[in-house]
Amino acid sequence: MNIDEVNQLSLALHKLNRGKIETRSKITIENGEDLALAYTPGVAEPCREIARDPQLANVYTNRKNTVAVISNGSAVLGLGNIGPLAALPVMEGKSILFKRFANIDSVPLVINETDPQKLAYIIRTLAPSFGGINLEDIKAPECFIVESLLQDVGIPVVHDDQHGTAMVVLAALVNALKVVGKESQPIHIVVVGAGAAGTAITKLLIAAGNHSVIDLERIIVCDSIGALSTSRSDLNSDKQELALLTDCSRGIDVHTAMIGADVVIGVSRSGGFKNADISVMNPNAIVFALANPVPEVLPPDALAAGAAVVATGRSDFPNQVNNVLVFPGLFRGLLDHDILSLTDEMQLAVSQAVAALVDVPNISMILPDIFDTRIVPAISEAINLVR
Amino acid sequence: MNIDEVNQLSLALHKLNRGKIETRSKITIENGEDLALAYTPGVAEPCREIARDPQLANVYTNRKNTVAVISNGSAVLGLGNIGPLAALPVMEGKSILFKRFANIDSVPLVINETDPQKLAYIIRTLAPSFGGINLEDIKAPECFIVESLLQDVGIPVVHDDQHGTAMVVLAALVNALKVVGKESQPIHIVVVGAGAAGTAITKLLIAAGNHSVIDLERIIVCDSIGALSTSRSDLNSDKQELALLTDCSRGIDVHTAMIGADVVIGVSRSGGFKNADISVMNPNAIVFALANPVPEVLPPDALAAGAAVVATGRSDFPNQVNNVLVFPGLFRGLLDHDILSLTDEMQLAVSQAVAALVDVPNISMILPDIFDTRIVPAISEAINLVR
Repeated sequence: MNIDEVNQLSLALHKLNRGKIETRSKITIENGEDLALAYTPGVAEPCREIARDPQLANVYTNRKNTVAVISNGSAVLGLGNIGPLAALPVMEGKSILFKRFANIDSVPLVINETDPQKLAYIIRTLAPSFGGINLEDIKAPECFIVESLLQDVGIPVVHDDQHGTAMVVLAALVNALKVVGKESQPIHIVVVGAGAAGTAITKLLIAAGNHSVIDLERIIVCDSIGALSTSRSDLNSDKQELALLTDCSRGIDVHTAMIGADVVIGVSRSGGFKNADISVMNPNAIVFALANPVPEVLPPDALAAGAAVVATGRSDFPNQVNNVLVFPGLFRGLLDHDILSLTDEMQLAVSQAVAALVDVPNISMILPDIFDTRIVPAISEAINLVR
Repeated sequence: MNIDEVNQLSLALHKLNRGKIETRSKITIENGEDLALAYTPGVAEPCREIARDPQLANVYTNRKNTVAVISNGSAVLGLGNIGPLAALPVMEGKSILFKRFANIDSVPLVINETDPQKLAYIIRTLAPSFGGINLEDIKAPECFIVESLLQDVGIPVVHDDQHGTAMVVLAALVNALKVVGKESQPIHIVVVGAGAAGTAITKLLIAAGNHSVIDLERIIVCDSIGALSTSRSDLNSDKQELALLTDCSRGIDVHTAMIGADVVIGVSRSGGFKNADISVMNPNAIVFALANPVPEVLPPDALAAGAAVVATGRSDFPNQVNNVLVFPGLFRGLLDHDILSLTDEMQLAVSQAVAALVDVPNISMILPDIFDTRIVPAISEAINLVR
């Protein structure tokens, strides 16, 4: 299918089913006795019990198996700030994938608020309803503020565009390095794109270097202007922090940054780097062109320009880097093991667990199949082991 | 079953099923093509379409069939302010009844905020997620403020404890008056309880009098001190307004108010009136003792004290006044007919439609059976006819 066909079929599917998600009762209500137990007067008793011991909400309600997928629609896919209403199809999609892959009940919630302090306040007040919160499609840098403000809310809160993406990218990188025989040598990585995903990927790669998951010699992050650098005066505080964490002290362009690089990871709006930039990378270059829906470069062109392994976000090329590889198992693990916040160690463990599910990685298979039923339990177990 | 048995069975049922509600996908996800349509990249197309025309959210998502059941847990059943977490079993119960009776998907949401202005703000920001909002178990007078602030939010917002209760009570009263042969004579009503339910019931009864649904001669509302009266200095603004709407200008007690009354409607904490108060009512008295879970008086005692027709909120006596008779059909109608706010005329039409489903009312049957499948379509049609 080409993208026009996909789009038309998608519209038809959404219209036919009137969206993708529904709610359902887990118990039958067929007579007055059923009503007396599930509703009045019987329902008062679990209420009293939870009032007595709040932990019992996890016994007498579905809260502990329910994850809210929350967005304000400010950075939806590659579509930008299309607002909460138009973001709803993505949130419904994410919710049904939670159910499909990890049997997690999930509520799509779109919130009409762009101020990060207010958005965090709203989400905080909603926490009694849920066992966990998946933040989605919130623009940078607001997403960093929102996530940070919610870390003490008493349930796990994870911004998937940051951490889900970072974990899948690292899993793919671990196996790609094996494919090109660079798993034990110092590598030079360029990240193109300094939004939510680029920031989280960079931080996780640095953590991976510190924990010897990879041998990271050098990492450069570029935004649309060029490499992040302490000499630039146009950076917001998050990019300034990133410039300090990475090793480029000079203002250089993407092309220059990519000279001698072993790995480039594109999470830009499309066009962040080009085939000509790949040609100046080291031999056996690894190219992740993850711009959505149009990759920075197409796989055949990248291979022709000298790449040895190419990954994209697309399902119609090999090596699809897709967050669905991680977020269902991640929340299954967080919920089942009562984990309130996601550490770097957990993220590294998740990436390694996902990578390990591919027995012998090759240029067309650096990640497991999305429908591999080993993924969710492997991730859940991995985070529990390093908690 | 006695109440202890109901409570124990209810706990067991809630624990066995881990609550009562789950989410479910309406489409199958079994291969990469399914994923491409429901999620990336296909999901971008309905997003684009909704961004272009917001009305299409009702075509490409489940929004228009989704009602949030929202509470802050400040006035849960007869349990009082037990907080959002402990209120969750009630919201789950309401949600599954929406599905069971009207095929409406419903999301239980409990919000940790007691300030009515802030609560209204939070709910307003959530409106893009839903086709309608059922407010539940929010204490008076805050519930009046919250509901009032949300009337312009672009989707119907109804506080069921007020209006759902009022509509069922009026339906029951219309038939009870037939049973005692008073349907055409001026009647004197005493409402005992001036919270959310008492206020809404009183206003709807006054509207019913103005529209000749009943012949209302006199209505007195009592709170725990006595009859609301303009001579009392202890009334909040909502009760002052109610005192002006009702006809009692003197401060009298409940017993005095009930002398010569044809109808008493108790929506107090239990104990608002007693059997001795019934004995001073007019012959063929109608007694609705709706305190939950313990009625003001028990039906056998009320009959012995002179009542001709007795109703309670309990399922183990005849004539159960239960909101589930109205709220599923009400929201079915509001959603299906694109109605943004509930008028007095609609409420009167609902009550009359529900009452009309009982062919020949008698002392044991003034309301239709909750499982009568004619109820939901009758209500939906009724509100559409008077919109």
